[in-house]
Amino acid sequence: MSCNTIGLGLVGFGTVGSGVWETLQRNGALISNRAKGTIQPEVKKIAVRDLKKQRDTKAPAELFTTDWQAVVSDPSVDIVVELIGGTTTAYDIVAAALKAKKPVVTGNKALLAERGESLFALSKEMDTPIHFEASIAGAIPIVKAIQDSYVGNEINSMVGIINGTSNYILERMFDAGLGYDEALQEAKDLGYAEADPTLDVNGWDAAHKAILLATLAYGFTIDPKKVYVRGIERVRRTDIDFATKLGYIMKLLCIVRSNADGSIELRTQPSFIPKQHILSNVNGVFNAVALHADAAGDALFYGRGAGQGPTASAVVADIIETCYATQESAGNRGFLPYKDSGEVVDINETETPYYVRFQVTDRPGVIAEIAQILADAGIGISGTNSPIDPNNPDAEFVQLVFLLHTCPFGQLRETLAKIEALECVTERPTVFRIENI
Amino acid sequence: MSCNTIGLGLVGFGTVGSGVWETLQRNGALISNRAKGTIQPEVKKIAVRDLKKQRDTKAPAELFTTDWQAVVSDPSVDIVVELIGGTTTAYDIVAAALKAKKPVVTGNKALLAERGESLFALSKEMDTPIHFEASIAGAIPIVKAIQDSYVGNEINSMVGIINGTSNYILERMFDAGLGYDEALQEAKDLGYAEADPTLDVNGWDAAHKAILLATLAYGFTIDPKKVYVRGIERVRRTDIDFATKLGYIMKLLCIVRSNADGSIELRTQPSFIPKQHILSNVNGVFNAVALHADAAGDALFYGRGAGQGPTASAVVADIIETCYATQESAGNRGFLPYKDSGEVVDINETETPYYVRFQVTDRPGVIAEIAQILADAGIGISGTNSPIDPNNPDAEFVQLVFLLHTCPFGQLRETLAKIEALECVTERPTVFRIENI
Repeated sequence: MSCNTIGLGLVGFGTVGSGVWETLQRNGALISNRAKGTIQPEVKKIAVRDLKKQRDTKAPAELFTTDWQAVVSDPSVDIVVELIGGTTTAYDIVAAALKAKKPVVTGNKALLAERGESLFALSKEMDTPIHFEASIAGAIPIVKAIQDSYVGNEINSMVGIINGTSNYILERMFDAGLGYDEALQEAKDLGYAEADPTLDVNGWDAAHKAILLATLAYGFTIDPKKVYVRGIERVRRTDIDFATKLGYIMKLLCIVRSNADGSIELRTQPSFIPKQHILSNVNGVFNAVALHADAAGDALFYGRGAGQGPTASAVVADIIETCYATQESAGNRGFLPYKDSGEVVDINETETPYYVRFQVTDRPGVIAEIAQILADAGIGISGTNSPIDPNNPDAEFVQLVFLLHTCPFGQLRETLAKIEALECVTERPTVFRIENI
Repeated sequence: MSCNTIGLGLVGFGTVGSGVWETLQRNGALISNRAKGTIQPEVKKIAVRDLKKQRDTKAPAELFTTDWQAVVSDPSVDIVVELIGGTTTAYDIVAAALKAKKPVVTGNKALLAERGESLFALSKEMDTPIHFEASIAGAIPIVKAIQDSYVGNEINSMVGIINGTSNYILERMFDAGLGYDEALQEAKDLGYAEADPTLDVNGWDAAHKAILLATLAYGFTIDPKKVYVRGIERVRRTDIDFATKLGYIMKLLCIVRSNADGSIELRTQPSFIPKQHILSNVNGVFNAVALHADAAGDALFYGRGAGQGPTASAVVADIIETCYATQESAGNRGFLPYKDSGEVVDINETETPYYVRFQVTDRPGVIAEIAQILADAGIGISGTNSPIDPNNPDAEFVQLVFLLHTCPFGQLRETLAKIEALECVTERPTVFRIENI
């Protein structure tokens, strides 16, 4: 199959737009390899509000325009990538692209949750797709999971932590004892909350995503006015303290669930969940969606829900999927290796810390002998443990544990062979790696 | 776009094969809706070893044959689904299908890890795909994540818990104090370990999956002989006890990592990980893959790695993706609503337990008054908490917390309005739902 250049028109070149540009530059060769050389996405035009604005990301000046319509109508633009946010101009851009039969990639949750009904109708009428992976939970591929990976499943329920700002604020109220205002200020200072965090803390950012999740899973658009939404803005320290005392954590949860009669439950609100639940470990600005599906059972997707790289990752995935669909023939969409060979590092060269256990005769000098061999090999000891069994203080053998600092496995193997040769060591040493993942 | 019937040929009708059949029957209408009515997968032939075997899943007798070649060569079969396992006959089946230019869907990790080089070469030569989502981590869509969702990312590392049998055995050794043999026997009794669990406990089932993960992420096939593999079969109670004492959990981990020079690290072994790491919460027969990618950052995928439903879920996803690719035109591959409307349950009808906090005047009888109103409404109390502030024992107001049993939100609202009207209640009651997710 020959290689097709596919023209991209970006509308918006802020954090996400420039992230998309950088990702395509940095990993262009890799993307081309994975696509078996069949596609070559190329940014042809970029619409921005202000041409004179200083930007860290450099793209050729001739790509820029202040006129989004020039991007949509440019004959070299095959795919329109809407990244300006909002529900007015963004609506016009998406509608214009669809009418021109140009597929749309967007990360605009508010647009699709508020005005999805008419945009999806237009998408259907024009037989032209809207892709929106980036609009829910950033880099977490939850849209593709529901649409493609769980295509054979009835989705019974989804529980999402899908607003990183709220999650950060609640975590700090729990873990650092902060009040709501302090935690919000800290989130702003660290760039985790925007200057105007209204849509985050009033729950609507999460609710827009939950509406889209429900639409994806259950197939109908939902009037946001019918959806129950409560944000974290009135969460008080008193309730955090009671939650802690009672064994709960508070999370801003989106709950989407289908009932036996086909109706669905859909709500967004700060909720108490048991401290031991896996979702209670979703901290900081991370997002997660736990779902239950009739064939697949329980699953959880966890990752970064916002930020330049994660959002760009999702936008690029949608761009590439859209590129595939522009091909005349689907070709081989399975995996194919794209390198003839590569190097797998010899296990002896791989390094981690280790746990090593020796069974030794209980006599004076044993620890010193072993420690000396480790010292001679230059392997550091970070801890030892050699308990006396209280039920058997006179046991013939003792278990002696060393935690060792990072060294190559080959070096450890050679050293352990010397230790094993000691007369006091009565069986082959046991080794496990400690993974600081 | 018109609807295309796509013929499936199943080779193998055991646990997974019959699960695929049942999923296609049960959710056929849903699949068709999600595919916008453009495709209609239909099982045309099924190869089995023994026609007379009693099967719980009933498929029409005329579909069955004992001759896999009759399935592959049947003109009504467009896609061959290989579900017999093993690396010999399965190889012949996959090769024959590719030579006939029929796309293959398989869940056979051993086949692709051991003989992937020649099968992928054939896939390339014949321009015919092999799809294998079900071969790694069951229902977790990790293949699609790497290939499609993270197509724009360099994958820096993947850490997988991808053998449920081993994970179950290790968990029981940790939590129930069982020895290895006891835990293995329990896993067999519960159906979590096969009668011959060799490939699970010696690490090779996990290693095959790790090899495929590395091939997917880094683009070259890997000789299994060059891969370091150690299973759980020699894990001893002593080491479990030491791990617990030292603050670690032991998991059978697959580690795949790229180095700056392009070489990769690839190993499978029981490893110590810190007890507070998110992977230490992956229990029972569940699988998880934690990955780090350059744009997306950290992510975790968690779900069922084996079993009829989860594996069938992945096979069906591959079948549908392959069906799309058989279409003459890609059409609209974005999401489209497929129902005009649906019912969102009124928030007043949704039910959970609740946490309710009242600020009240500190005088005798307050708790009785509130409890009586709850009792009159038929709302049960599962707990109360009304601490005296030791720093301020004579405070004018007291915070009074009730944990309430499940009831409709509307009923709670009405009841709280009555309580709020009490003279002793000094501010609006605070309510949070307790989600028993």
